[in-house]
Amino acid sequence: MPKALIERVARYHQIASRAGESGQSQVSSAELAEYVGVDATMVRKDMAIIGVGGRPKVGYFVGDLLARLNDVLGLSRRNEAIVIGCGGLGSAIARYPGFARYGLKIVGVFDSDFSKVGQLVGEHRVLPMEKCKSVIEVFGVRIAIITAPGSRAQQLCDWLITRGIVGIWNFAPVDLRVPPNVAVRNENLGIGAAQLIYHVNNRTTPTAPAP
Amino acid sequence: MPKALIERVARYHQIASRAGESGQSQVSSAELAEYVGVDATMVRKDMAIIGVGGRPKVGYFVGDLLARLNDVLGLSRRNEAIVIGCGGLGSAIARYPGFARYGLKIVGVFDSDFSKVGQLVGEHRVLPMEKCKSVIEVFGVRIAIITAPGSRAQQLCDWLITRGIVGIWNFAPVDLRVPPNVAVRNENLGIGAAQLIYHVNNRTTPTAPAP
Repeated sequence: MPKALIERVARYHQIASRAGESGQSQVSSAELAEYVGVDATMVRKDMAIIGVGGRPKVGYFVGDLLARLNDVLGLSRRNEAIVIGCGGLGSAIARYPGFARYGLKIVGVFDSDFSKVGQLVGEHRVLPMEKCKSVIEVFGVRIAIITAPGSRAQQLCDWLITRGIVGIWNFAPVDLRVPPNVAVRNENLGIGAAQLIYHVNNRTTPTAPAP
Repeated sequence: MPKALIERVARYHQIASRAGESGQSQVSSAELAEYVGVDATMVRKDMAIIGVGGRPKVGYFVGDLLARLNDVLGLSRRNEAIVIGCGGLGSAIARYPGFARYGLKIVGVFDSDFSKVGQLVGEHRVLPMEKCKSVIEVFGVRIAIITAPGSRAQQLCDWLITRGIVGIWNFAPVDLRVPPNVAVRNENLGIGAAQLIYHVNNRTTPTAPAP
């Protein structure tokens, strides 16, 4: 799927999850469209692409929609992950309650700073880096969330890949490079800041009604 | 500019900033292309759109490129911001060193939890929410970074907008709605997780050379 479609599908999944959790049984293409910020025609096209059938004036059944979205995104299986780096951001991620919905399960939190090892971060006790290899093997971990300092992030990333990690979620302030058989997502606060500032400077001002 | 172009421009800005900081005076379209993950033809088209001239076999002068990108994105002026919510994520953002490059200056850090008020977070002393209105007025703050709990985020956002905030950078785990004359950027860890997992499950495996 193209990148923009994957992002929309992830958003459909989020709204469907919330609808399901709040006991809603149906969701309309208009609701999905409003949440994702596209028009209802695009929602219906997307649903056709991923093979979800809707009904006129009813919309989509939340259960069916969610099952299909879980399949498409690969969220049906459990995805074990580890967090490397236990500063403010790493701790916040390790405690983030919203990952269960995605089958993402954090099974280990690591730091190279011995003063942090042994501390509790949410439900996780911080482990020393020497234990990382074993945890990856024991739990079959595929995803590593990196919040280590930028200076060490690429080296760490390369090492994790040799240990069998195939998905890197990077919050260090550098863009990490990975081989083509590894997935990487670089969260980049700077890029976010630049985009927000552009939009602040190019806001649509509400237009006055025509005279 | 369309959304995808804005994101590429933000990335060109990041690579140009780094090149400048490391003393590099020129950058080629191939380097920019590799970093952004597009081809060099698209880089040259983008540069033509934003009005940056390059030279064959030389590329772009970093100083000129950066000046133009700063203008396009609106990063030349200083953008004052406040952080609301001082948990792990809020503290990490308040201490993030990379914002200076974007003219983004955090001038106040707030929390409604009195046990946090008065503590130091990096160079910032945590202020009580009652001081928020004054800080916005005194510094002409336009941007608010919200890391408050999801349950309170929308109400907080609405109030900030009445106080003159025109850009909301939201890290709370809900998507915030704003009027059309306000810019919002919802950072959504769940959407990030779903996209990464999709890519982990749909990795391109290195293809063997044709026989």
